Amino acid sequence: MVTERKNIIFIVVDGLADRPVLSLRGLTPLEAASKPGMDRLAKIGICGILDIISPGVPPGSDVAHLSLFGYDPYAVYRGRGGLEALGAGINISSDDVAFRANFATVREDMTVIDRRAGRTFPEGDKLAEALNGYRSKNFPDIEVIVRHTTEHRCVVVLRGPGLSHMVSDTDPHGESKVLESVPLDSSFEAKKSASVVNEFTRHSYEVLHNHPLNAEREKRGLRPANILLLRGAGRLPDMPSLKELYGLKAACIVANALVRGVCRAAGMDVIEVKGVTGGFDTDTNVMGYAALKLLDEYDLVFLHIKGTDSASHDGDIEKKIFMIEKADSLVSLLLDSIDLGHTYLVLTADHTTPVSVKEHTGDPVPVAIAGPGVRSDGVKRFSERDCAKGGLGRLQARFLMPILIDYLGLSKKYGA
Amino acid sequence: MVTERKNIIFIVVDGLADRPVLSLRGLTPLEAASKPGMDRLAKIGICGILDIISPGVPPGSDVAHLSLFGYDPYAVYRGRGGLEALGAGINISSDDVAFRANFATVREDMTVIDRRAGRTFPEGDKLAEALNGYRSKNFPDIEVIVRHTTEHRCVVVLRGPGLSHMVSDTDPHGESKVLESVPLDSSFEAKKSASVVNEFTRHSYEVLHNHPLNAEREKRGLRPANILLLRGAGRLPDMPSLKELYGLKAACIVANALVRGVCRAAGMDVIEVKGVTGGFDTDTNVMGYAALKLLDEYDLVFLHIKGTDSASHDGDIEKKIFMIEKADSLVSLLLDSIDLGHTYLVLTADHTTPVSVKEHTGDPVPVAIAGPGVRSDGVKRFSERDCAKGGLGRLQARFLMPILIDYLGLSKKYGA
Repeated sequence: MVTERKNIIFIVVDGLADRPVLSLRGLTPLEAASKPGMDRLAKIGICGILDIISPGVPPGSDVAHLSLFGYDPYAVYRGRGGLEALGAGINISSDDVAFRANFATVREDMTVIDRRAGRTFPEGDKLAEALNGYRSKNFPDIEVIVRHTTEHRCVVVLRGPGLSHMVSDTDPHGESKVLESVPLDSSFEAKKSASVVNEFTRHSYEVLHNHPLNAEREKRGLRPANILLLRGAGRLPDMPSLKELYGLKAACIVANALVRGVCRAAGMDVIEVKGVTGGFDTDTNVMGYAALKLLDEYDLVFLHIKGTDSASHDGDIEKKIFMIEKADSLVSLLLDSIDLGHTYLVLTADHTTPVSVKEHTGDPVPVAIAGPGVRSDGVKRFSERDCAKGGLGRLQARFLMPILIDYLGLSKKYGA
Repeated sequence: MVTERKNIIFIVVDGLADRPVLSLRGLTPLEAASKPGMDRLAKIGICGILDIISPGVPPGSDVAHLSLFGYDPYAVYRGRGGLEALGAGINISSDDVAFRANFATVREDMTVIDRRAGRTFPEGDKLAEALNGYRSKNFPDIEVIVRHTTEHRCVVVLRGPGLSHMVSDTDPHGESKVLESVPLDSSFEAKKSASVVNEFTRHSYEVLHNHPLNAEREKRGLRPANILLLRGAGRLPDMPSLKELYGLKAACIVANALVRGVCRAAGMDVIEVKGVTGGFDTDTNVMGYAALKLLDEYDLVFLHIKGTDSASHDGDIEKKIFMIEKADSLVSLLLDSIDLGHTYLVLTADHTTPVSVKEHTGDPVPVAIAGPGVRSDGVKRFSERDCAKGGLGRLQARFLMPILIDYLGLSKKYGA
């Protein structure tokens, strides 16, 4: 018998899980939506619920995906900045400390007038370039890399020896004074890093304040983008790739930069697919066809749909149901096309975002796995409550990946 | 939209859970009791079962409540004495080592004739006062505080630097010789503490043996209360309050001193309610009305009913069912009165105490949570076996509090 290598399509629908909603007669948006594909998946698969971190703890998207990819976030997570930078396509090393940054407008006394220099911001590349490569005066072994990403946003990376991500933001997250970055632990590395951050922040004002592009902006009646506000210091998580761990060749189709960063940190190839966006307009059909093609080459293809979470944060029930139904059509397309004799289809969420709360909560999320040899369990619908009765029971999310690896036949026996 | 702050009433029915009983045709006392309130709670709520510590480990009441309040007992618990002292209203610091103690009768050769000087013991306050404030001769930096509580019982506290609770009892728990306290680890602190305990025990005999109140007792044909027997060395658990952890303002109505001590250690305000006792005669109606009033001021109101456990220790099935039905009337009263749109009602037990075993066992206990946004699960009855099919699944008890905190919207996101 020829053993064909098995593979997996792994779908995460962001913020999919919810709580019962009064205006839906006590149903959750997932229960209220029309989702024949997901229900078919639940019917033929094994279902359960996952605690993304642990019961009652609301996860951020970065930590949630680390967990879903099999890592213990308490052991590997070192802040958001590094993952965000990686997701934006910036290659950083595990010693670099990265920040998310905004071009913003301040008065001379460092009071923030506007945290965003503008959604439309054609000057971004050139202003970032004017700051890029700055070398610290206090610590000449540290270089600062500045890369414009989208709109008013950029990534700032501190590079050099002896740095730490345990430093606070300069971004006041409101219209008050620019904050002084302070070390968040007593290490020399944290003190050094905070010092460089403060020095670079002053430098950014000096350079941007006097930059001719800002003089032009002011002539056009626009506010000058005269400072960079830094937040979310982070280093890359300290972890081996899925390839190193399991010999797994993995690809992802993900628009969201932060989740993309986690995928890259796990060693996935990022596949660009035209039409796949992080918005409500994303094309789940082209995503589906692209995923099917990738199965020829990869053991695991990870797909991420963001709109459900955005709708939840907006408290928009209709839009959430619309996005669930869009995600459902992806599930149907894949179920119609894959060979369930050697391809697994896995569906879950990265956290609960109730439309009533508009924030992530700590409730568990449903999961279903269909494919060869799974112990299907009589669950007939894919929902928060139906899956709670499934054969997987209630699990920590970081155990999902080992289960999938075992289905693929790539797990290692412990003991003799 | 005005976001009203949500709150919780959290009921623990002590030793409520049980095993199937032959004389109840294989039902548990909880299954056999008439309990429309509890069943209604299960129906509208989400249910599950809790391992108080871990499967098969029978918990003491102190450790059980630590766990139910969200603490890891293996990390924070440091013996019973400190909690008991706190529950008796004695303010002790985290460095003090406290003991439960009995006034007892010994012969001159230190053989115990009677471990209890008497249930009716009017001399308690004065004899305690005669010992209170003793300063160790071997370690003059150590002072001994003695406080009479109820009947023949008192609390003994060692106060001063360099003490440890890792010392054994002097109470032989039977009619043999008074024991020498020995250090239970190799630390200097344990040696010092055991030495003070032994020195104080001899001192208690010298003082009490010659005390005029004992001469009077003997004249009346009573045995002299001529020694203090110490047991259950403990320091306060090393833990932050619920306020410090979650910003939670909590109150409790609890008659039992030990459970009260855990409540105080968690930072709860202890509310005295006339008619609430630790016995079979406790008035659950006044408890209910008092709880409803406390909701105006507190985020969490904790209620404790003890009689079910006492009945179980006595092996008294009738009495246990009687107490379950009494607890049920409390649940009905609360369900009829609270606004389930912003108040959660939580019901569980601190451990299983089978009437057939008459001791705590390690079986899991049922739990139900009703309130806004809970994923009700189709469970129709509140019992050990029905709740095992609920949407919460099987959880460690220390995860219950994070789930409740998350429902209240007070949880902190991990990650970005």
